Amino acid sequence: MPEFLELLPPAQALSLLNSHLPDFSAEPVWVDTLQALGRVTARPVFSPEPLPAFGRSTVDGYAVRAIDTFGASESLPAYLALVGEVPMGAAPNFTLTTGQCALIYTGGMLPEGSDAVVMIENTQVSRPSEMEILRAVANAENILKPGEDVSEGQEIIPAGVKLRPAEIGGMYALGLTKVAVNPVPIIGLISSGDEVVSPSSLPAAGQVRDINSYSLSALVQQIGGEPHRFGIIQDRPQVLRETLSKALAECDAVVITAGSSAGTRDLTAEVIHSMGAPGVLVHGVNVRPGKPTILGVCNGKAIIGLPGNPVSALVIAGLFVTPLLERLMGLPANGFRKSVFARLMVNIASQAGREDWVPVKLLPSEQGLQADPIFYKSNLIFSLARADGLACIPADATGFGVGELVEVVFL
Amino acid sequence: MPEFLELLPPAQALSLLNSHLPDFSAEPVWVDTLQALGRVTARPVFSPEPLPAFGRSTVDGYAVRAIDTFGASESLPAYLALVGEVPMGAAPNFTLTTGQCALIYTGGMLPEGSDAVVMIENTQVSRPSEMEILRAVANAENILKPGEDVSEGQEIIPAGVKLRPAEIGGMYALGLTKVAVNPVPIIGLISSGDEVVSPSSLPAAGQVRDINSYSLSALVQQIGGEPHRFGIIQDRPQVLRETLSKALAECDAVVITAGSSAGTRDLTAEVIHSMGAPGVLVHGVNVRPGKPTILGVCNGKAIIGLPGNPVSALVIAGLFVTPLLERLMGLPANGFRKSVFARLMVNIASQAGREDWVPVKLLPSEQGLQADPIFYKSNLIFSLARADGLACIPADATGFGVGELVEVVFL
Repeated sequence: MPEFLELLPPAQALSLLNSHLPDFSAEPVWVDTLQALGRVTARPVFSPEPLPAFGRSTVDGYAVRAIDTFGASESLPAYLALVGEVPMGAAPNFTLTTGQCALIYTGGMLPEGSDAVVMIENTQVSRPSEMEILRAVANAENILKPGEDVSEGQEIIPAGVKLRPAEIGGMYALGLTKVAVNPVPIIGLISSGDEVVSPSSLPAAGQVRDINSYSLSALVQQIGGEPHRFGIIQDRPQVLRETLSKALAECDAVVITAGSSAGTRDLTAEVIHSMGAPGVLVHGVNVRPGKPTILGVCNGKAIIGLPGNPVSALVIAGLFVTPLLERLMGLPANGFRKSVFARLMVNIASQAGREDWVPVKLLPSEQGLQADPIFYKSNLIFSLARADGLACIPADATGFGVGELVEVVFL
Repeated sequence: MPEFLELLPPAQALSLLNSHLPDFSAEPVWVDTLQALGRVTARPVFSPEPLPAFGRSTVDGYAVRAIDTFGASESLPAYLALVGEVPMGAAPNFTLTTGQCALIYTGGMLPEGSDAVVMIENTQVSRPSEMEILRAVANAENILKPGEDVSEGQEIIPAGVKLRPAEIGGMYALGLTKVAVNPVPIIGLISSGDEVVSPSSLPAAGQVRDINSYSLSALVQQIGGEPHRFGIIQDRPQVLRETLSKALAECDAVVITAGSSAGTRDLTAEVIHSMGAPGVLVHGVNVRPGKPTILGVCNGKAIIGLPGNPVSALVIAGLFVTPLLERLMGLPANGFRKSVFARLMVNIASQAGREDWVPVKLLPSEQGLQADPIFYKSNLIFSLARADGLACIPADATGFGVGELVEVVFL
């Protein structure tokens, strides 16, 4: 196993990991569009027809030929013969010719021959079957033309889009009740540590319950993956090797939370390195908490070794497991992080060259959001439960002062 | 039905709706903690035991009595007798007395009699069974005391908290494998409009497929509710009354998307008003898009009448259905909106006194996020599909200029 003398910055460590992973590819699966919320499109979606399929009114009023209204005003109205009313949900059974108009409601289908709609408040009845038009309309005014939303054959949703309510609704508008999405990536989770026991058991003196399998399961679910837990394994190379081998065969990527001592972390790195080429790529990242992070790729699949402390594990998972999972879902890497900026309420010191992530409580104030850092140790999981998010102190800063703006990523 | 001459601002309209709703109450349901991601705690969660349950080392090193190291330095080390090694996952079978130390790993249980740990790099072997301590440690240095994360009986999660990976992990740390959460609210969805047909059918001329039932279903799912669709109903008072009555009986709140014409919107308002006291509270909101919004409460349940245009329906759902659903989930109202600020790339005009929501595309730049407004009409659903979020132009502005910061809420 190679030696790692230099700690990489997180962004560089992630790039290195990505550069050793194969490009995304997966067999698409067809799902009901209504079940596709949060899934990622496997291929571009094209419109099978124009939307709207016919000219429609966007107001309640009178369908007209715009030219018949030119020059019309309150003092000099245009007089148009009322030839009918457009029924909702059906084609009008008449056409308009010069000098005619027809009552139409919002969403109604424009009669053939009409090209604009005069709003009802700009009209009045002059005598039975005749309307006074009190305001001129331009061609196409107050109407939607066929195909104005999307034209036939147009790409409406690119590949690699995480579907939201707007896309779901849009597909139904076009009758697309099924959609091809990428499969849900399966992430294997292994906890290691001789002191770690199942949460359902009563720990003996010296034992602690497994946290990381569960917090990471929830994180994987939250992002859109499917966690597979491979349980808690003892710090023995042979057991770790067997479990990791099984997990790699069954999953798209594997996350191991190493035992907390330096010795068991080194063991984890050695076992990862033995599983296939290129093996361990990163062993140690210039970040706090979470320095002893391991990133590796074995035979095209990523293995992430997280520190065993539960706070470090979740923070580092946000930096590496989240982007890895998004990649495995087929999302493009150029998405922006959903974060907020908030003003620090106390000074935070930080070591130059190291990226720090500090749990903060967010408090609204008249000057905008404020960030109150939470005192934490990386083994105290409830310091994260008390936080709203993690503030980033970038590597080029030696800390931030009171009132300075920090970027906060939600937990 | 009362007349509504004044259009209320959105925030005031929401307050009025809330003031007529009963306080939140629901029978808690017990779920597996691992299935509780995104659910809301029904009652405070208390710790059944201290965490950690025993004193632990936070480093690899030697457990000592701090007093034995006072004054120790590289030039004048303290010499301590090495009495053993703490096994991981078990209680040490020895205690420390004055002048003694024991090898311990990160997470190991402190032997009785010790009160601090010297890091391994600050020690060296002097002779068999004796260590040189090269640096003094203070009492409690490099250890976690019992109960340092949480003490026995401490409230660890208040009621009304939406559970995240950190809380899920924290509960497992304490052996809490079940948690009492609020039931998932059921939101009834009714689409109306004589022109609206099911997305699985082929629309005839003049007909359009139902969008709103589906985009709103997805929105309700996204927030954490369960949508119940009551189909598409014709614009006849009797049918609407029967369907609304059934939906009110079966659901915690009902959302109707009205037909798009003024006449059918009034019909919707009249029917809502006839369903029970106090009836319609708001008919018309000073917002664009979505002015013809209806808010009502009938016998303790909220009914929201959304405009039929799909863009207006989704925008207004974000302003009223989202906070209503959060209230029905038992979340406190004082949460902050997850939004970002971005600089406008073009001017946006707006009418003073009216709140405008403009679909925007977000583009990262060296100066931070930029917001590119999307030209839209409220009937063009794909103008939302092309957007990343909605920029808010507050009521007190007459528009925003290029380079100004706008708040953008994600879609």
